[in-house]
Amino acid sequence: MIFSSDNWSGAHPKVAESLVRHADGFAPAYGSSDLDRSVNDTFSRIFEREVTVFFVGTGTAANSLAMAASNRPGGVAFCHTEAHMIVDECGAPEYFTGGARLCPVEGALGKIDPSALSAAIARYPAEFVHHGQPMAVSITQATEIGTVYSLDEIEAVGKVARSNGLPLHMDGARFANALVALGTTPAEMTWKRGVDLVSFGGTKNGCWCAEALVVLDPGKAADIPFLRKRAAQLFSKSRFISAQFEAYFEGDLWLDMARHSNAMAQSLSAVLSSSNRMRLAWKPDANEVFAVMPTALMDDLTGKGARFYPWARPASFEGAIGDDETLCRFVTSFATAENDIEAFRRLLMPI
Amino acid sequence: MIFSSDNWSGAHPKVAESLVRHADGFAPAYGSSDLDRSVNDTFSRIFEREVTVFFVGTGTAANSLAMAASNRPGGVAFCHTEAHMIVDECGAPEYFTGGARLCPVEGALGKIDPSALSAAIARYPAEFVHHGQPMAVSITQATEIGTVYSLDEIEAVGKVARSNGLPLHMDGARFANALVALGTTPAEMTWKRGVDLVSFGGTKNGCWCAEALVVLDPGKAADIPFLRKRAAQLFSKSRFISAQFEAYFEGDLWLDMARHSNAMAQSLSAVLSSSNRMRLAWKPDANEVFAVMPTALMDDLTGKGARFYPWARPASFEGAIGDDETLCRFVTSFATAENDIEAFRRLLMPI
Amino acid sequence: MIFSSDNWSGAHPKVAESLVRHADGFAPAYGSSDLDRSVNDTFSRIFEREVTVFFVGTGTAANSLAMAASNRPGGVAFCHTEAHMIVDECGAPEYFTGGARLCPVEGALGKIDPSALSAAIARYPAEFVHHGQPMAVSITQATEIGTVYSLDEIEAVGKVARSNGLPLHMDGARFANALVALGTTPAEMTWKRGVDLVSFGGTKNGCWCAEALVVLDPGKAADIPFLRKRAAQLFSKSRFISAQFEAYFEGDLWLDMARHSNAMAQSLSAVLSSSNRMRLAWKPDANEVFAVMPTALMDDLTGKGARFYPWARPASFEGAIGDDETLCRFVTSFATAENDIEAFRRLLMPI
Amino acid sequence: MIFSSDNWSGAHPKVAESLVRHADGFAPAYGSSDLDRSVNDTFSRIFEREVTVFFVGTGTAANSLAMAASNRPGGVAFCHTEAHMIVDECGAPEYFTGGARLCPVEGALGKIDPSALSAAIARYPAEFVHHGQPMAVSITQATEIGTVYSLDEIEAVGKVARSNGLPLHMDGARFANALVALGTTPAEMTWKRGVDLVSFGGTKNGCWCAEALVVLDPGKAADIPFLRKRAAQLFSKSRFISAQFEAYFEGDLWLDMARHSNAMAQSLSAVLSSSNRMRLAWKPDANEVFAVMPTALMDDLTGKGARFYPWARPASFEGAIGDDETLCRFVTSFATAENDIEAFRRLLMPI
Repeated sequence: MIFSSDNWSGAHPKVAESLVRHADGFAPAYGSSDLDRSVNDTFSRIFEREVTVFFVGTGTAANSLAMAASNRPGGVAFCHTEAHMIVDECGAPEYFTGGARLCPVEGALGKIDPSALSAAIARYPAEFVHHGQPMAVSITQATEIGTVYSLDEIEAVGKVARSNGLPLHMDGARFANALVALGTTPAEMTWKRGVDLVSFGGTKNGCWCAEALVVLDPGKAADIPFLRKRAAQLFSKSRFISAQFEAYFEGDLWLDMARHSNAMAQSLSAVLSSSNRMRLAWKPDANEVFAVMPTALMDDLTGKGARFYPWARPASFEGAIGDDETLCRFVTSFATAENDIEAFRRLLMPI
Repeated sequence: MIFSSDNWSGAHPKVAESLVRHADGFAPAYGSSDLDRSVNDTFSRIFEREVTVFFVGTGTAANSLAMAASNRPGGVAFCHTEAHMIVDECGAPEYFTGGARLCPVEGALGKIDPSALSAAIARYPAEFVHHGQPMAVSITQATEIGTVYSLDEIEAVGKVARSNGLPLHMDGARFANALVALGTTPAEMTWKRGVDLVSFGGTKNGCWCAEALVVLDPGKAADIPFLRKRAAQLFSKSRFISAQFEAYFEGDLWLDMARHSNAMAQSLSAVLSSSNRMRLAWKPDANEVFAVMPTALMDDLTGKGARFYPWARPASFEGAIGDDETLCRFVTSFATAENDIEAFRRLLMPI
Repeated sequence: MIFSSDNWSGAHPKVAESLVRHADGFAPAYGSSDLDRSVNDTFSRIFEREVTVFFVGTGTAANSLAMAASNRPGGVAFCHTEAHMIVDECGAPEYFTGGARLCPVEGALGKIDPSALSAAIARYPAEFVHHGQPMAVSITQATEIGTVYSLDEIEAVGKVARSNGLPLHMDGARFANALVALGTTPAEMTWKRGVDLVSFGGTKNGCWCAEALVVLDPGKAADIPFLRKRAAQLFSKSRFISAQFEAYFEGDLWLDMARHSNAMAQSLSAVLSSSNRMRLAWKPDANEVFAVMPTALMDDLTGKGARFYPWARPASFEGAIGDDETLCRFVTSFATAENDIEAFRRLLMPI
Repeated sequence: MIFSSDNWSGAHPKVAESLVRHADGFAPAYGSSDLDRSVNDTFSRIFEREVTVFFVGTGTAANSLAMAASNRPGGVAFCHTEAHMIVDECGAPEYFTGGARLCPVEGALGKIDPSALSAAIARYPAEFVHHGQPMAVSITQATEIGTVYSLDEIEAVGKVARSNGLPLHMDGARFANALVALGTTPAEMTWKRGVDLVSFGGTKNGCWCAEALVVLDPGKAADIPFLRKRAAQLFSKSRFISAQFEAYFEGDLWLDMARHSNAMAQSLSAVLSSSNRMRLAWKPDANEVFAVMPTALMDDLTGKGARFYPWARPASFEGAIGDDETLCRFVTSFATAENDIEAFRRLLMPI
């Protein structure tokens, strides 16, 4: 009954096997091995265009590197109020950029509202030196609260970014979960809708440590090798990340894991909403489920071994929460089993 | 015949097995699992005192984090002219510190000369705001050119650091190789000689990606969790690093691998020096061997499949190199086999 | 009829004379002259305790240096949504700190609401590494919208800061205007109410360029000489700033100028509110007056030579502004004459 | 007998008068006044091409801003071992750039040796990510040790910079002194010899505080307004810097002051070398004179009221200094009088 986070799970056996398979022998370091190149080619195939891929160690590193690659003096990046970059990265994007600012933008269900975005950007007139200058827009797909931007919604944000000459970054810590939720392709969900840079996460979806910054237009990647190395994110035995991605993509394992994870979230969601002891905060699209429950119930469930986190109420959440209630987050992953759901169901509805 | 670098080798089978063994199940993220704690305890046992350990993804990260933890405004850190931090980290230590300076200090055989260090520090008088202010001393053990500081030599540098109120950092990318070369203990090689911070490397010695900043006095570690997170070096599935270190220390595997690696360097060194076609540049102490050879011979050996790098002549190298000669570096590792040495011997001395 | 800003005015004749008087002869550079020391003593006398004063070139520099002096990794400083540091410094505080964040806090009339501040700080639990950590609170006195914190209001914010272990900074770009508005002393308005650091501005109140960071507890100033020098804010001919402050304080010139400036704001305010063509947005306490007027009227007045700026509507302003109306800011200074007010009155009310 | 530094002198009466003349009335802030524009035009006239000028508060700010404008990730700027940027700015250039490195280059008489420069740049191969990448070359004219690059010498350094695609910056803290020493024009000494950016100093030559970054190709200045504002170097009452430059250039006052200053250095130099109690360290070209004298004599002269500084021996100085001798620096300025020289002569040669 571990629903704390998808990063509490371990690694898929096929990922583990791939690591073992590539443990032997010698290979050029720092990303120049045959395996590294082959995995880069796989990314290009999956995105249906030539892309340049930079492996890094954490999702925070991918996001911060994306900001560093978009940096301008006095720069301001726009992202949702609940964005991981703002809330949960200890200022890493600001640090990597030497002080760029993350400007929060509102929007329902964890998604940037395009007109709020336009208004926010407009507060930084082009040559007005006092306010600073816009430098990027970032969306999270799937969002931090388990919802997913539709393709049209991405397109709408992309249009605002483009019309202001700003690159659009996608924090894809849960890229695969969003992708299968929409039933679309990486190309459709990114560059065909105006996305320029993707933090492509594998860690939360069955890898040990496999994160990448994907630059969709390789012509814009010239500085990034130096930005990455300077940020201490160039791994010498790069093959150990490549080996994970090789298994991840092989036979669409990544999509299967994401589908499983999302399906578990739907099951869990059904359990929660069938109970009269709590209510869903909003409809989950991917692998995170949010519910409002009496705080006493939360304590009771936790005391009996269920693991999930109380969560700060998002500004974009309009539902009422009583004084004796708490908003809680449940996350499923490739490793979540029907048994876990069933065990939680029995805990919630004993008879 | 791969002598390019010890990071061209993969992972020891026991390290790989440990990763597989810990792939299963759920565990708290971000370094708070039982395994993480247990490995931290192992570090304390090995160092014979309570230490605080911060896993990071690369040796550059460990070094740069050590500098960030020692940072002062206008700060100047002192390290050897050939230090990896100066030569091979693309400015990461300067970047992590927001602009601290690395001041090169000379010394024979890749080791800081204590009196040169004193003189360098003395150029920064305590209250003289124009020059900046000393903030740390860093030594590399084993050094970048394959030599090893004796305990007395570390003590001598440590005394200069202490008398100037500066923390002493040790870049231990090849910590184990130095340790077995000296036949001493981690405690003797570090805090008993004045070392405060250690970049403890496992990657070059049989791990996939296992690096740690070891703070020998836990009372000085308060800021480092934030410094590390902000630098995007806090791994969610931290257990994957812990699992490597668990196997690394189990049954002294790390020391065995380092002994093997050093022994291979001695074998290779014997081969090189028995040939009349090249000469050793200096006596190797650990797992790196430097030789001066005719450039034509280098090209010939390379053409026949041997892998090693030409190397920039260290300022501390006083030997002569002819116009048609090149200094070359050979590195051995846990994965180097007698066969590799023998194959190279045959290449060099066909009869 | 120049009401654009108090920095459109020049220098008071006595300030100019002092500069001329000190132009001659030789004096030690970088703040070590007799005049520099004497002016530092004057600051101590005015603040009724020993203080350490650091001259800098701009108010932005004083604010940013204060933030640098309070810096922590992943640091978050709390200031009002309308704070100059957030809105008008092109990210300088973030830049000086290598990426600390400015967290906006709401409050009516441009002043931080203490309970909103407590709530904002509480979102950064002490050891929770993901969110970052609080590092400072900053208030602006007089505020950016021409209001003034009462002593009790400063005390209330100071209490929240103290109870969270945070230093309290005061952006005193218009320190003198606030002081005379309250009819109090610098000691009462600062350290007796919990203020630790003051950006003490003279430029807007009759100097050419005279800004200082005043550290109220000299024991906390040890790093600042290096922080300032590294930020390129240590002036060689420091005496030119000291000379301005000498004249500024001599015979309470600074208070006289601020009183005049505030009185002019009251006169202007009376003119504006006696007209039925516009209305005051809120009651002015110091030397800035905000009025809501038809946009057509604004254009008309501007066309006839009046100078003032349209202003973005503060989040803390609850009054209604019609679609065809604009909020405008008028600023008075030591150089504003009754004639200017009278000329504007005639423009507004021709008969 | 004040020869400590040219920044111990005050301001020329005409500079002071100009400040008084412009003290009155209102003018647009932040560099947009008529006076600001007119002074910018004067710079263009003097440089014989359209230039863009950014006023800043200190020479360190101008240098550091030039580095920020040339910044690249992992960037390395090349300057002479004795460069003010390396020795006397407390790491400001590294700070402004978020960690770029200043690489010292040797050369006789304080001037970069072009072939040493080529060799230093060559150690950073274009795509080799570990070492970092070249970003700029900087020379100081006149140099820190009172010598002056000939036009051919500037051209030679410029050629190396250009052939490596690097901008060439000139630290012109003593620009005027070098200019009149060479008897040439600003155009000849800068862009006609390959210089792209000039830190143009007025402070040491008779101004209070008048420094500017001059961008010789305005097309490359687009980011600098934001870089300057973010670095807290945009002065609100910018006219007070413009007013100084107006007087500075009027009737070639700047050249007259520099000629006087250099002539005083020649007089002083004649006095020093005519004495048998000390010897010139090298021939002075501008307004700094270096002499080697018995330390006892230095103490004696100082005790009798002469002011000058002992100086660290430059690496480029090949002359011998005895154990009981000290290298000393004497600086003249617009304010140095024949009387000062004569008084020092009498002190040195009583009869």
